[in-house]
Amino acid sequence: MRLSELSERSGVSTATIKYYLREGLIPAGLRVSATQAEYDEGHLRRLRLVRALIQVGRLPVATAREVLTHVDDESLGRTIRLGAALWALPHGPSPDEDAPETAEARAHVAALLTELGWSTALELGDLSPVHRSLVASVASLVRLGYPCDIGYLTRQARIMEQAAVHDLDEMETYGSEAEQVEKAVASAVLYEPLLMSLRRLAQSEESARRYGL
Amino acid sequence: MRLSELSERSGVSTATIKYYLREGLIPAGLRVSATQAEYDEGHLRRLRLVRALIQVGRLPVATAREVLTHVDDESLGRTIRLGAALWALPHGPSPDEDAPETAEARAHVAALLTELGWSTALELGDLSPVHRSLVASVASLVRLGYPCDIGYLTRQARIMEQAAVHDLDEMETYGSEAEQVEKAVASAVLYEPLLMSLRRLAQSEESARRYGL
Repeated sequence: MRLSELSERSGVSTATIKYYLREGLIPAGLRVSATQAEYDEGHLRRLRLVRALIQVGRLPVATAREVLTHVDDESLGRTIRLGAALWALPHGPSPDEDAPETAEARAHVAALLTELGWSTALELGDLSPVHRSLVASVASLVRLGYPCDIGYLTRQARIMEQAAVHDLDEMETYGSEAEQVEKAVASAVLYEPLLMSLRRLAQSEESARRYGL
Repeated sequence: MRLSELSERSGVSTATIKYYLREGLIPAGLRVSATQAEYDEGHLRRLRLVRALIQVGRLPVATAREVLTHVDDESLGRTIRLGAALWALPHGPSPDEDAPETAEARAHVAALLTELGWSTALELGDLSPVHRSLVASVASLVRLGYPCDIGYLTRQARIMEQAAVHDLDEMETYGSEAEQVEKAVASAVLYEPLLMSLRRLAQSEESARRYGL
């Protein structure tokens, strides 16, 4: 399809598409003449992901480009490729290494991951920004004097495991590995706020069930 | 206890505590002389919550005050009191009522809530900012052309229901209703980022289990 059709089907203006092309967020089309290029369904799909990252996730262009570099890196194994793309997304704060509660939080997280048998997370440890932001969250609990009960966190983590199984089942309905990784990235940006809304609604629902309004 | 002990036990400087007192975020102590007041465990607990809201949740002082007003409002039923406190927390964006996909998103959300049998959420509808931000998330999916499968969302919502049951069980271990509502607010601010980290780690773990690294 031509640029005008890509614009029409995606609902993105041609000026914005040209900007994304210049910034390397979408691969160039197949040049068919000096002034025209041809685009395909892959471009449409990529455009959708770029909008999810930039318009919904509010990522800076440079961060979006980094995420997409990992999505496209076929030299990586699937878990690492997925991980690298998710790692490039914005995370919560990293732990403050000078704070006394950080060592305690790190020990809590190690105990939790051991209890869960999450060997990949244990092995990668602080290499992963997701792990670092988990340590930072637990450090906040410790610093403020909130309980950090491994039993409670384990139950919550088992629930997230179930969600992950559904997520990967859903991902596998997509044909290529690139599409699957794209889907996982879009899901992190688009579905996490949605899940948090569902969690808060579920709490009200359960409260109404137990205590009335 | 005196202000100095409150400061020592909470790790918050006396200057910051005085600021919170002036801003009405912590109730005044019991005046015992012209220059001294006495504080109790309730003050310590409230101070912890204020730090969670302001230092971790990065809420503006006015928003924190609004949240605490609902926490303290004993005229409300428990579900409404909990809901009102959570509603005052920051949410995702509200839906754009002029956008064509918003009506479709609202229909999807109504179908989802009906399928789930979440009658409180259905009844409150757009009165709740949580509901509005769910509609906005679904509208993003629709606008970008991502699938919005009610079956998938129902499965995810059922998982969040399980999490809510654990949350309320945990809440009930706290003595008074005020403490329970405080706990729910702290949990929304402190545990949501933690759960999202667990979700991303669970995805990597499940991916490693299925495909290796």
